[in-house]
Amino acid sequence: MYASLTTESPYTGQVLALTGGVGGAKLARGLAGVLSGAQLTIAANTADDFDYWGLRICPDLDSVMYALADLNDEERGWGLKDESWRTRIAMRRLGGDEWFQIGDQDVATHILRTQLLAKGDSLAAVTEKLCCGLGIPHTLLPMTEGRVATKVITDQGCLEFQEYFVRDKCEPEVRGVLFDGLESAQLHPKLAALLADDTLSAIIICPSNPFVSVDPILALSGCRELLKAAKAPVVAVSPIIAGRAVKGPAAKMMRELAMPATASAVAAYYGDVIDGYVLDDLDASYADEVAAMGLDTCVSQTMMSDVASKTQLAETILDFASRITKKK
Amino acid sequence: MYASLTTESPYTGQVLALTGGVGGAKLARGLAGVLSGAQLTIAANTADDFDYWGLRICPDLDSVMYALADLNDEERGWGLKDESWRTRIAMRRLGGDEWFQIGDQDVATHILRTQLLAKGDSLAAVTEKLCCGLGIPHTLLPMTEGRVATKVITDQGCLEFQEYFVRDKCEPEVRGVLFDGLESAQLHPKLAALLADDTLSAIIICPSNPFVSVDPILALSGCRELLKAAKAPVVAVSPIIAGRAVKGPAAKMMRELAMPATASAVAAYYGDVIDGYVLDDLDASYADEVAAMGLDTCVSQTMMSDVASKTQLAETILDFASRITKKK
Repeated sequence: MYASLTTESPYTGQVLALTGGVGGAKLARGLAGVLSGAQLTIAANTADDFDYWGLRICPDLDSVMYALADLNDEERGWGLKDESWRTRIAMRRLGGDEWFQIGDQDVATHILRTQLLAKGDSLAAVTEKLCCGLGIPHTLLPMTEGRVATKVITDQGCLEFQEYFVRDKCEPEVRGVLFDGLESAQLHPKLAALLADDTLSAIIICPSNPFVSVDPILALSGCRELLKAAKAPVVAVSPIIAGRAVKGPAAKMMRELAMPATASAVAAYYGDVIDGYVLDDLDASYADEVAAMGLDTCVSQTMMSDVASKTQLAETILDFASRITKKK
Repeated sequence: MYASLTTESPYTGQVLALTGGVGGAKLARGLAGVLSGAQLTIAANTADDFDYWGLRICPDLDSVMYALADLNDEERGWGLKDESWRTRIAMRRLGGDEWFQIGDQDVATHILRTQLLAKGDSLAAVTEKLCCGLGIPHTLLPMTEGRVATKVITDQGCLEFQEYFVRDKCEPEVRGVLFDGLESAQLHPKLAALLADDTLSAIIICPSNPFVSVDPILALSGCRELLKAAKAPVVAVSPIIAGRAVKGPAAKMMRELAMPATASAVAAYYGDVIDGYVLDDLDASYADEVAAMGLDTCVSQTMMSDVASKTQLAETILDFASRITKKK
């Protein structure tokens, strides 16, 4: 799968990507195409994780894992390609819940994860085993081993994230977002160690939902401080293109949270934690506004429709990161 | 499914069937075709139950349940018809175990059961919910709520039952059988109550493996005594036809346990717990030998290849049971 990487990567140092699900997973796949297994660590949001059918579901870890293994369904935008739904149909027949869509192949991931966690393995160890099974040479880490649960406060009450996202199709109007368990959760020690490592050359905030994918990671105790103290620059990629999120409710949430649904508004939202910002060609007009925030900017094609465009964006970002200096 | 039962059943009183998996499940389906939901209780062996993929698997309960719902695969002899195996293939890809064959539809049963048990529901309550989902009007009970685990002592060491049965395809030579946890397990209270109920008109030991399916039930504390004290006669159906088991290792085990693989040897093995015995037409020559044990005998076609032959055998057995008197 990564056979083209038998040649040396032109990039030096370690790269850390912070990500949520779909959009971030695409960029993670791009980065994996140009960085060796030893160079790339991807830390994924786990605040969307929840229990369903008595199984531990980690949507963002799985989206990244499936994308890295080239097994993700590009059309649907989540889950595995060539998926089938017979388990769900059987569950419906038995009178069980089936609003959360778990495919016949996907369920194996959740079963094995749940089994290994019950045996006492850490989520990082389980993730490593699953990635190893799928032949992924890069490191995928959960942001924490703690249990954090996103709650979305809406006009229809406080909802579990997956209830809001999947069951209610993001239709409720968002008033705010809470992360249950965040206070007691620790940034994953490997992630904290990497952030303090001198060989780290770039930290990339993937184009994921700022409120429900990136925020949980940034909000973990000490994370913002470690990002600012890291030698490597922090580059965020805009999840908004021409006022819209490619997938998911980011733009809708921004409007509901009384924020303009623009690329620059996301840059402002991340604030002093980032040093550089990547905007889409279609948002070139916002570059000056972002630069005025004291950020280096890079305007590029950011839509990732195939492996080539993912890889191209990854190269653009890594080149950009290598040119910019850390803000003090 | 049981629409033909809108007419009154010609049988009076309650009927209890004690059963293991495949062969017993066929007769259970036959009995369900001639007895109303309120008349028939089926108690299944649970000593084969085990955990796999972190899920609670109850092979005999499921075989009976699927047979009662007309969803069992007749050709394969176990599991659901029209089954597929994508979860297993995905599990293999992840590096997980897959020697025990769980289908994409079947896994929903195990997931829902495991989830409900984890919530604190009893196995009987879970079984009732599953049966209800599948539209089964009859009562299916686990023999006990306790955890009993069959161990097969073989020339290759002591094996978990499913290791012997599925993984090793019954190839090891059997020296004996143990039931771990049997001493502390209690006969299911509903089963004990039914055995003591005056409205019980027949107790049927289905054509299941005497050593690993029927023995665990009979060996539960008090079971043999309750069977003997019950007002209703106990009728066993031979699991051996012309020296062979229709399915499974019963005949092979008999030879390995230095017992002739005959219908009459099974009758002798059950001993004074039974009052009547049903032999196949092909074993008519053993009828005298069985009668000489003091048992009423019934010689009949016992192969069950379709619903009609299952129903026919059920009627034959119920008629036979109504004619015989309880031995003192």
